[in-house]
Amino acid sequence: MTLDSLQIARAARVAQRQLGARPGEVRSAILARLAELLGERSADILEANRFDLDAAAKSTLAGPLLDRLSLTESKLETLRDGVLLLAGEPDPLGRALTRTELDDGLMLRQVHSPIGVLLIIFESRPDAVIQIGSLALRTGNAVLLKGGSEALHSNRVLVDCLRLAVSEAGQAPDVVSGVEGRAAAQALLAHDDLIDLVIPRGSGELVRSIQASTRIPVLGHAEGICHLYLHADADPEMAARLAVDGKCDYPAACNATETLLVDREFLPRLGSVAAALIEAGVELRCDARALPHVPGAVAAGESDGATEYGDLILAVRTVDGVDDAIDHIHRFGSAHTDAIVSEDAEARQRFLDGVDSASVFANASTRFADGFRYGLGAEVGISTGRIHARGPVGIEGLLTTRWLLEGSGQGAGDYGPGKRAFLHRRLPVS
Amino acid sequence: MTLDSLQIARAARVAQRQLGARPGEVRSAILARLAELLGERSADILEANRFDLDAAAKSTLAGPLLDRLSLTESKLETLRDGVLLLAGEPDPLGRALTRTELDDGLMLRQVHSPIGVLLIIFESRPDAVIQIGSLALRTGNAVLLKGGSEALHSNRVLVDCLRLAVSEAGQAPDVVSGVEGRAAAQALLAHDDLIDLVIPRGSGELVRSIQASTRIPVLGHAEGICHLYLHADADPEMAARLAVDGKCDYPAACNATETLLVDREFLPRLGSVAAALIEAGVELRCDARALPHVPGAVAAGESDGATEYGDLILAVRTVDGVDDAIDHIHRFGSAHTDAIVSEDAEARQRFLDGVDSASVFANASTRFADGFRYGLGAEVGISTGRIHARGPVGIEGLLTTRWLLEGSGQGAGDYGPGKRAFLHRRLPVS
Repeated sequence: MTLDSLQIARAARVAQRQLGARPGEVRSAILARLAELLGERSADILEANRFDLDAAAKSTLAGPLLDRLSLTESKLETLRDGVLLLAGEPDPLGRALTRTELDDGLMLRQVHSPIGVLLIIFESRPDAVIQIGSLALRTGNAVLLKGGSEALHSNRVLVDCLRLAVSEAGQAPDVVSGVEGRAAAQALLAHDDLIDLVIPRGSGELVRSIQASTRIPVLGHAEGICHLYLHADADPEMAARLAVDGKCDYPAACNATETLLVDREFLPRLGSVAAALIEAGVELRCDARALPHVPGAVAAGESDGATEYGDLILAVRTVDGVDDAIDHIHRFGSAHTDAIVSEDAEARQRFLDGVDSASVFANASTRFADGFRYGLGAEVGISTGRIHARGPVGIEGLLTTRWLLEGSGQGAGDYGPGKRAFLHRRLPVS
Repeated sequence: MTLDSLQIARAARVAQRQLGARPGEVRSAILARLAELLGERSADILEANRFDLDAAAKSTLAGPLLDRLSLTESKLETLRDGVLLLAGEPDPLGRALTRTELDDGLMLRQVHSPIGVLLIIFESRPDAVIQIGSLALRTGNAVLLKGGSEALHSNRVLVDCLRLAVSEAGQAPDVVSGVEGRAAAQALLAHDDLIDLVIPRGSGELVRSIQASTRIPVLGHAEGICHLYLHADADPEMAARLAVDGKCDYPAACNATETLLVDREFLPRLGSVAAALIEAGVELRCDARALPHVPGAVAAGESDGATEYGDLILAVRTVDGVDDAIDHIHRFGSAHTDAIVSEDAEARQRFLDGVDSASVFANASTRFADGFRYGLGAEVGISTGRIHARGPVGIEGLLTTRWLLEGSGQGAGDYGPGKRAFLHRRLPVS
């Protein structure tokens, strides 16, 4: 098995380099055919999924997991629509990011290129095969898909659809492969010569265990401990609205608010915010200074204020001004998304400048940190890494660049003191 | 010692976050003061350097290494000019890369931000302290500088200048620190929570050993096995010129040509190219098919064609067309820089599309792969990694991004079917 997965990765590299060098229409045709196949083979897909669901029902899989495992006609239609949309998009490869005329007849371009071979490790949701597989093909990457064993049969049929679409376009299907079993995935994680980027999709635990076991760059986030800071000059009505939205809109999301930082000067007005949260069903765990201002609150324990609850629980911590709030965020946050509520422009600016997180907001809910809401189109993931991609990541997260130089016989020795000088004329990119 | 370097890194993080949040003028003032200090303290700097040089002269350090270790008044002046230039440049931080109006009164910006804490590991050249230190400060990063023991005293005085310039601007000097001793550097390489990016400056061996010993992203290249491919339709005169320039302009450089790929159809015209190379003092190591066309050539051994000579030696390998050349480059190259010589536009395009290297050239010398020649301004390094930065890297290599969202109280729950819709209006960046 171990040997197999390495061979699969090597074949993926070869196939990827071929696919990446083909015109964009080839990749569009693959995606158009994939959309058709999802329709033509829907019966097979749903049958395989039923098999997985039956097995899961007999096991200890919890309700929400069964939901995520389940495919339906309507889910397939949504997937098909997404793939078709992607098929119609302009080719991202070869698009120039910069153009510089180094000299007459010596033109430099920096262009978008595929990253290479991606390893996607995901849990439960077989939809991920199509969502990430189609994004990878749009960007000319190879993709190895390692799903959870609970979705084995569903994933197999979906990977088959991807491979069929590729080979019917006359390309080597090895550009997409399924990877099965933990040992195979572990073997790949040890090979930074074979895999260029790992994208985990699943629990924080999954992400952490992958980050700890590989030197390959990982695009993802292990946790989202997001803060909402109520400044001394926060409008209490807005504060209540953003706290309730941040906590209750979707408590399990990574961009849900987990800690409410309350300026000590806002404490006298905390009551109405707390009442709105309590009415929305939120349990408030308050530090000693906030506690007297919140009837019915629970005293915070040691871990409150540094926990991703993923539930209707909110830590409430008191801070002494903007700088103390920023300091708290740096010490206890996860650099995912943090927001300030304030009517004071100077305080907002200080917060926006000072907080070293992927997303920093003023007078908006932490829940906006999301690729769709940011207008990025398809979301590849949310990254709390500082390198390559940060925050919500669109299709650009699957791209790197190459430098292309076209000359007419120039040597570097032609340039220098007393010889030719570079023009370095920056040209617009069209 | 180990504990110390971790404390230094933690203090660097705190100081960096403060410096990065200050207005650009503060960082400009630091650099302007640094330029002055390099003048005011030149006697101290040169004395410390003489001490290192004396010690090195008694050791076994080779001539070229002594050259690199040596500082002179004129080298200091060049450094000073570089720092002043950087001081006058517009602040790269906070510059918007994208601006999107998500809705009325809900504005998203993606802005340039410092990466965080950089670890620079370099050999011999104490100039690197000022070159990289000033680039790090311009971009609001903290920088830990680990030089070779042979330059210990020179590096100490230069790090002192940097720290003094920072503290005289009222900022915490911990944003710059020297790191001494191998154990201290190793301890830092084990902490991806403390260091965000490692930049090695030195031999391929140094880079490889660092890459193998850390999970922190490394910006650099271990080797440069660059190819020049003479296509069937190459102009022999141009081929000779680019081969000589690529090999002889600076043979020790990473972008020097190491392997000449000769199309079998070009073999009959190889003689004049070979003659020009031999006249320039190059030893040619030819495969069996090329050998008969090159009087005085040496038969290639096993490692020729997969070696970075760094010297006036060139491997000559025969290939069967563009695709075979591309295949050879993928198998034996280092994805640094590869070039084609051809009068045939279609062949050139196929090569530019198909070669998966950081820099791909047509009818130009591989020696052009360089930040200055690309017009990037100061060069941070050349990266053969595929993530974050690829090829010659300018100041952008020291930057990441953050997403800033400024609203007027919006919650994510306000949007959706039957509710408000996003505008997602892309605005120009000014």
